[in-house]
Amino acid sequence: MPTFEPKDPNFESRVRASFARQDIMETIGAKLVSVSPGEVQIELPFRDDLTQQHNFLHAGVVTTIVDTACGYAALSLMPADSAVLTIEYKVNFVSPAAGDRMVAYGRVTKPGRTVTVCTGDVFAVSNGQEKLVAIMLTSMMRVVNTGIQD
Amino acid sequence: MPTFEPKDPNFESRVRASFARQDIMETIGAKLVSVSPGEVQIELPFRDDLTQQHNFLHAGVVTTIVDTACGYAALSLMPADSAVLTIEYKVNFVSPAAGDRMVAYGRVTKPGRTVTVCTGDVFAVSNGQEKLVAIMLTSMMRVVNTGIQD
Amino acid sequence: MPTFEPKDPNFESRVRASFARQDIMETIGAKLVSVSPGEVQIELPFRDDLTQQHNFLHAGVVTTIVDTACGYAALSLMPADSAVLTIEYKVNFVSPAAGDRMVAYGRVTKPGRTVTVCTGDVFAVSNGQEKLVAIMLTSMMRVVNTGIQD
Amino acid sequence: MPTFEPKDPNFESRVRASFARQDIMETIGAKLVSVSPGEVQIELPFRDDLTQQHNFLHAGVVTTIVDTACGYAALSLMPADSAVLTIEYKVNFVSPAAGDRMVAYGRVTKPGRTVTVCTGDVFAVSNGQEKLVAIMLTSMMRVVNTGIQD
Repeated sequence: MPTFEPKDPNFESRVRASFARQDIMETIGAKLVSVSPGEVQIELPFRDDLTQQHNFLHAGVVTTIVDTACGYAALSLMPADSAVLTIEYKVNFVSPAAGDRMVAYGRVTKPGRTVTVCTGDVFAVSNGQEKLVAIMLTSMMRVVNTGIQD
Repeated sequence: MPTFEPKDPNFESRVRASFARQDIMETIGAKLVSVSPGEVQIELPFRDDLTQQHNFLHAGVVTTIVDTACGYAALSLMPADSAVLTIEYKVNFVSPAAGDRMVAYGRVTKPGRTVTVCTGDVFAVSNGQEKLVAIMLTSMMRVVNTGIQD
Repeated sequence: MPTFEPKDPNFESRVRASFARQDIMETIGAKLVSVSPGEVQIELPFRDDLTQQHNFLHAGVVTTIVDTACGYAALSLMPADSAVLTIEYKVNFVSPAAGDRMVAYGRVTKPGRTVTVCTGDVFAVSNGQEKLVAIMLTSMMRVVNTGIQD
Repeated sequence: MPTFEPKDPNFESRVRASFARQDIMETIGAKLVSVSPGEVQIELPFRDDLTQQHNFLHAGVVTTIVDTACGYAALSLMPADSAVLTIEYKVNFVSPAAGDRMVAYGRVTKPGRTVTVCTGDVFAVSNGQEKLVAIMLTSMMRVVNTGIQD
């Protein structure tokens, strides 16, 4: 794991405040566990009303938490005037999203002035055992002076 | 657009029944608009409780409906004993997910015995105007005799 | 297909001159067939020395021509001072790359000031019949004043 | 890194023999450095005839070596009767492919009966310094009894 120096010393409070404005997180019951420079962790307890037809969490729900984790991992390294947008992501699903809860990790692989590349993992946790559910590779964009804020 | 011959004449009722078991669809308010061989359309009215920090629908929500549209487009061409799983997807986000409602189209590009490749589009609709929001390219897998059913 | 207005009236000669500087194209024998605003076509005759272990063209060779097609499709819509870089791509392979020659099409789906999203297709042509081989979804970046030129 | 037990004790000779049949590898000058269970390393010295218009190695060339590395990483864990095909890949390019040589690593993240998910990295090496150039996330498929062999 590379180590990163944040450009904004208030990165954690900025990320936490932005996370609090993501209404979807409250709707699905996701919590921001930790924010460090270039890495964010989010948890989501399993809920029956978020499932697909086989009673696993929907791939889109798994994606929602790991996209947010990656986006804020990217934002944590950006200057204070920045907002972050998801350009694109790719996700592979390797095990069913079943378990007591999901834990998503987003990590910066390569920070950039405009584009930051992040990788993410989602694990299903049951009885203290972790199992890999999904892997994300994503491009996040820094935007400034566009009228949107983080 | 290629034309496909469904292997199961009851493909539409099978897809509709499976969609009805995706509890997440009711949770977010998504509706199955149409099912034809190799193509599925889903609608989602905008809701404030599904947004990210800039008050757009979260990328994961947009992904949720287009993943379901692509998965059922794939399933519509599979034999009756099949279940469908998302192997992976890639999504590009090209405009903010803002508008009265989102319309997601999933289409089979190349059906296969095991892997079916689909493409999806999501449009934001406001005052009758459509604007492209997201593009998906995805691999869906047919599974049989695994204990999961569609 | 959307229609695009090029920002640089000399887009075609600019693309053709840049293509001529891609030494890899001569090495593998690829030809630039056509350049129109937001769309580029490239051809590659089959060659045994470009194959993988099953005697199909290597996926990376197929990717090489469709990446170039998409990159120049994006460049064709950019201002004259721009250079184009591939941020990322995703490619699905749907049939073996076998046949007399490959034809790659790159098309702009959504032009942007910084990021342009393109889609690409590669077809194998044998005896006048086309068969879809690969599909690309990619993000191209416009760069200016970085010391690299197109 | 997970540790994997190969199903075929002759995995290394099988991978090396298949690599030797990839004529493209000789054409571009790529070498198979090492094969271990679930991990393969390939090297490519820089060559001017493999470059794009800015005199970097073409993205497709970088992709060629890391696709082969990931494919053989997957094959190394498959039973002896298997052949491997690339279903799809996604690659992010994070630095220009410039340097004395490229080193590509392919690693299995999740082996599967049909689909194996791999990640790959490509580093540019100059004067003993490594710099990350590209990241791959890919789905490889095991096929048997299809007439193609590895």
